[in-house]
Amino acid sequence: MPHRGRVPGATGPVLGRALRVLEAFSPDRPALRLSEVARRAGIPAATAHRLLREFCEWGALERDDAGVYRVGLRLWELGSLAPRGLGLRELALPFLEDLSQITRENVQLAVREGTEVVYIERIAGTGAVPVLTRVGGRFALTATGVGLVLLAHAPAEVQEDVLGRPIERYTPETVTDPDRLRHMLADVRTHGFSISERQVTLDALSVGAPVHDSRGQVVAAVSLVVRYGSASPHALAPLVMTSARAISRALSIL
Amino acid sequence: MPHRGRVPGATGPVLGRALRVLEAFSPDRPALRLSEVARRAGIPAATAHRLLREFCEWGALERDDAGVYRVGLRLWELGSLAPRGLGLRELALPFLEDLSQITRENVQLAVREGTEVVYIERIAGTGAVPVLTRVGGRFALTATGVGLVLLAHAPAEVQEDVLGRPIERYTPETVTDPDRLRHMLADVRTHGFSISERQVTLDALSVGAPVHDSRGQVVAAVSLVVRYGSASPHALAPLVMTSARAISRALSIL
Repeated sequence: MPHRGRVPGATGPVLGRALRVLEAFSPDRPALRLSEVARRAGIPAATAHRLLREFCEWGALERDDAGVYRVGLRLWELGSLAPRGLGLRELALPFLEDLSQITRENVQLAVREGTEVVYIERIAGTGAVPVLTRVGGRFALTATGVGLVLLAHAPAEVQEDVLGRPIERYTPETVTDPDRLRHMLADVRTHGFSISERQVTLDALSVGAPVHDSRGQVVAAVSLVVRYGSASPHALAPLVMTSARAISRALSIL
Repeated sequence: MPHRGRVPGATGPVLGRALRVLEAFSPDRPALRLSEVARRAGIPAATAHRLLREFCEWGALERDDAGVYRVGLRLWELGSLAPRGLGLRELALPFLEDLSQITRENVQLAVREGTEVVYIERIAGTGAVPVLTRVGGRFALTATGVGLVLLAHAPAEVQEDVLGRPIERYTPETVTDPDRLRHMLADVRTHGFSISERQVTLDALSVGAPVHDSRGQVVAAVSLVVRYGSASPHALAPLVMTSARAISRALSIL
């Protein structure tokens, strides 16, 4: 779980090492032994052992009978206080459920963290096309419906950072040309929705729309992901935009 | 967010103070200023300031333009890796949604952490009776439907710890007599479900059932919370038990 914004050496030696122990756990590697934690954190095994014990005593991590460490319930509880995580999800969930029940397709809610998308909620449609995302997972800003919305409304320096680097290709249809992406982002801002057609998997189409806070800032994006060819993007866009605006209104009332 | 299992002085001075900074944030106090963090963590303002800055750089906390600190998205992401949190919730959600759609009542999923209940998921029924719980929130084991299930299957020392202390009263109907509670817990084990009748609020009835892992351990509880008088507990029990067993089967397959 690399963190782009991190300043190397900014944390003190103890807190820095402690945070590296936590960083060793990732969606790909949620369960680790002591030796793996030490190696991934780049610290001696004795230090890793002491920090793991302290985190287990506090409840941030949990150790099973076989000596395998996992993220603990207490960290989940603390994380549930993040306004951009569970807070946003709780507010948006009824609207997302309505959109899911009406369309029976995949509905997603995401925010931007640095130069990536983080998925806050995902409701799988009955018999809908499979999607690659998971709640709490990250993805590139450049390919998905939610990502294009969040990138279109990101500060200029974030856009330049993302478009200045090589852009990951997922399928032959993934747009990796920065100039073409700039045009797509301008279209998102003009029309109020994004279209990602076969850019992540060849069998899927995604349409995204922005969620605004009371100051008009884009704070999240909603998308529908459907089987490619099953519906026109322009038929889906009003649905996604209506749902995203409803969530924006609910955010403003709070 | 006090943690019963914590050993005082077990953490080193730096990590201990750092964890106290995180502990300052709670469901009641999710947004804090520097001075409040220092006071709640019991550390000097200069130390609190340095630790807050380090946590913000890492993404564990976020600071807004007004100088108010909140839990950051990165901690939510890390917490999403907790198998007893989001992992269990993702697996159980389709079953909970079925139960919610069929009954149109409140559906809850919870686990035990020490001597308390932690709510992992909550689906509010359309027009259902209001409930006090929130996702990520804690509650006493002795009063609710899920709590009685989790207490009935907790280790003997946890039961004795809970029943040996004064038991919190929420309504005139809350059972606070340890002997009567012991009988209720035995009934839960015998019949496979719990009944909490007006014990949390006078207008609500809750029926809970256990979720087992592949080794037969009770790892979670499911409940329906309905308006008192609207349904018989014995009509609700088979529904809750069926849903809890379906989740248990899904857990065993994984």
